[in-house]
Amino acid sequence: MTDLLALTEQLCAIPSVSGAERALADVVEARLRERAAGLDITRVGENVVARTRRGAEARLVLGGHLDTVPAAGNATPRIEGDTLRGLGSADMKGGLAVLLVLAEALARGDGRRDVTLIFYEGEEVADEHNGLRRLFGERPDLVAGDLAVLLEPTGGWIEAGCQGTIHVRVGFTGARAHSARPWMGVNAVHRAAPTLARLAAHEAPSVTVDGLDYRESLQVVRVKAGVANNVVPDRCEIVVNRRYAPAGTHDDAVAATLVLFADADDVEVVSASPAAAPNLTHPLVTELIAAGSLDVRPKLGWTDVARFTQHGIAAVNFGPGDPELAHTADERVERADLDHCLRVLSKFATA
Amino acid sequence: MTDLLALTEQLCAIPSVSGAERALADVVEARLRERAAGLDITRVGENVVARTRRGAEARLVLGGHLDTVPAAGNATPRIEGDTLRGLGSADMKGGLAVLLVLAEALARGDGRRDVTLIFYEGEEVADEHNGLRRLFGERPDLVAGDLAVLLEPTGGWIEAGCQGTIHVRVGFTGARAHSARPWMGVNAVHRAAPTLARLAAHEAPSVTVDGLDYRESLQVVRVKAGVANNVVPDRCEIVVNRRYAPAGTHDDAVAATLVLFADADDVEVVSASPAAAPNLTHPLVTELIAAGSLDVRPKLGWTDVARFTQHGIAAVNFGPGDPELAHTADERVERADLDHCLRVLSKFATA
Repeated sequence: MTDLLALTEQLCAIPSVSGAERALADVVEARLRERAAGLDITRVGENVVARTRRGAEARLVLGGHLDTVPAAGNATPRIEGDTLRGLGSADMKGGLAVLLVLAEALARGDGRRDVTLIFYEGEEVADEHNGLRRLFGERPDLVAGDLAVLLEPTGGWIEAGCQGTIHVRVGFTGARAHSARPWMGVNAVHRAAPTLARLAAHEAPSVTVDGLDYRESLQVVRVKAGVANNVVPDRCEIVVNRRYAPAGTHDDAVAATLVLFADADDVEVVSASPAAAPNLTHPLVTELIAAGSLDVRPKLGWTDVARFTQHGIAAVNFGPGDPELAHTADERVERADLDHCLRVLSKFATA
Repeated sequence: MTDLLALTEQLCAIPSVSGAERALADVVEARLRERAAGLDITRVGENVVARTRRGAEARLVLGGHLDTVPAAGNATPRIEGDTLRGLGSADMKGGLAVLLVLAEALARGDGRRDVTLIFYEGEEVADEHNGLRRLFGERPDLVAGDLAVLLEPTGGWIEAGCQGTIHVRVGFTGARAHSARPWMGVNAVHRAAPTLARLAAHEAPSVTVDGLDYRESLQVVRVKAGVANNVVPDRCEIVVNRRYAPAGTHDDAVAATLVLFADADDVEVVSASPAAAPNLTHPLVTELIAAGSLDVRPKLGWTDVARFTQHGIAAVNFGPGDPELAHTADERVERADLDHCLRVLSKFATA
C-alpha cells in the first residue's frame, strides 16, 4: 500500500505557488498515465482530469487544487514521526495524494460508479486564474457530475456548503480646507464616521440551514483617508467584507449589503462569490456521511463548492488537515488523517 | 519714494523656499548695510536683524519670514497694472519690502521709539528650522521688545492673537483573524469607530476673547487601517488636529484634547503650539489700531505671534496681502495694500 505521508511529502517538495503549477501538473499527469492508464486522462492548461467511463448512473467528482499560497518559511517539507510539516501539506497536497492513490484503484476497475478526479490550478488567487472556472467554461463535460467533493482541509469532517462573500469599496467625498478653517470644506472622514460606527455596532446573525448554524460576519477590512496634517481630507475610502449564509439568492445578499451604505457617495462591488447550500439531504451526501460516520459542520470560508453549486452540482468539502492551520507557518498533516480520508473516499467512490 | 510693488517683485524674483533662504538673506543684509547703515545690523545664520539703539522707553519688533512654500507654477513674479502675482508676493515678501523701506526712514532718525526689524528663515516648515526660535534661544537680546508685529498677510486688518494647535496620533489595537471568522480576532477599525463618530459629531465652540470670536475646530485629518481584504485589521491609527482659542493655558488645552481619546490604546502628541492672546487692551496695540483706523479680527491659523507671547511679548499680525490666497497658485498682492501697510507702520513706528 502506498505510504500517503511519503507521497504527500514528495508532492510538497515540488513548489507550486499559484501561477507556477506546471511542474506539479506534469508530475501528476505522468503518474496517472503510468499508474492509472485505464482512466481517460485529459490535460487543459495546468489542469489534469482523470475519469472512469463506465456509463454508470451516478458520477462523483473529486477535486483538489495544485497551487499553494507563498511560503512562510516552510517551503521545505519534513516528516517527524507521523506528521508532515510544510507548505501545502494540509492545503492541499495531502488531498492530492489521496486522489492519486484512489486513481489507481479506479483504474483497476474497483467499484461501479463513474468517478472524475480533477487536479486544478489557480485556486488561491483571483478567480480569473481558477482552473475550475476555465474547465467549466471550456470543457464542461470534464467537470460534470452528480456530487462534487473538494478535498480542502476539513480535519476529516464534512464541511457543508460555504458562506457567500462580498467585498464592497465605499467612498465618501468632501472638500479640502485648511484644518484651522474646516467650515470652508467638508471632512470626508467625518462623513464616513456614522457609517463606520453603524458597521462596528452591527451584530451579524447566525442563520440555520439544514440544521447547520452559519455565523455571518460584516467587517471593515480597510480604511484610508488623509492629505496632510493641516488639511481637512476630501476623500475617505473603506473596504467592507460581508460573509453570509447559504440562504436566499446571491442577488438578494448583494442588495442587502449595499443598503448598508446609503450614506456613501459611491459604492463598488469589488468581488462577490455566492454561497453554496449544504446539501445535507442529497442522497449521495447522506451516503458519504454514512460511509465514514462523519461529523458535519458548516464551512464558513469560501471554497469552490460554490462554483459547483452555481453549475447545478451538489458539493461538499472533505479532506485531511486542520483548516485553521492552512496558510500558516505551522501548516501540517497527520498520517492518520490521510489514511482516514482515503478509507472513506475509497468506500464511497468504489461502492 | 520707493516703488513698493517693484521692490516686492525684486524680492519675489529671488527664490527662497524654506531651507534655501541664503540668497535672499544676502540681498536683504546688503541692502540694509547700504541704505540703512545707521542701524545696528546683525546676521545669525540666514536671519538678519536691524535695530535702532536710541535708549527709548518702548521697543517695537517688526518681523517677517524670508522663506516661502514650494512654487505652484507661480515661481516667476509678474506685475499687471497695480497687482503683483507670484510665489511669496503675499506670504510675505510684500511685508519684507515694507520693512526694508521702513529701515531707511529709521536710519534717517525718524521717530523716537526704538524699533527692531527681523528678517528670518524657516517659518513655513517644522518648528526646529524656525529662525525666530533660534534667535530666542541664542540671542534673546535681538528679539526683545514691548510689542511685536508680524507682517503675515492679513489684508490690512489686525489679526489678533492666534489659536493654539495640537496634533494627536491615536492608535487602536486589535487582533488579526480571517474575515470569515472575525470572532477569532478583534477588529481595530470597529474599536476606533465610536471615537471617530464622537469626533465627527463634536461641535467645536466659538470662544470670545477680548470681544473677538475664536471659532475652534476638531478634525480627523488622517485614518489608516488595513492588512488585506480577507483579514480583520489589528491596527487603526488616526491623526486629529484641534485648534483652540487663546483662553486658558496650553496645558489645559492639551489635557482637554487627550480626554477625547479615553477609548484608545495609545495616544501621542505629535505637535503642539500654544495659542496667543489677542492683547487688544495693550496700549501699543490700541495705538497701532488707532494709527490706521484698523479693523480687527481673530487669527484662526497659527503664527509666530504665539512664540512672542510665550516669551512674554505681546504680538499681533498685520501685513499686506489676502491670507486666503497664501500658499495658492493665485497668490498676489495689490499696490494699495502695500502702501497702506507702510503708511500705518511708518506712522506707528516713527511716532
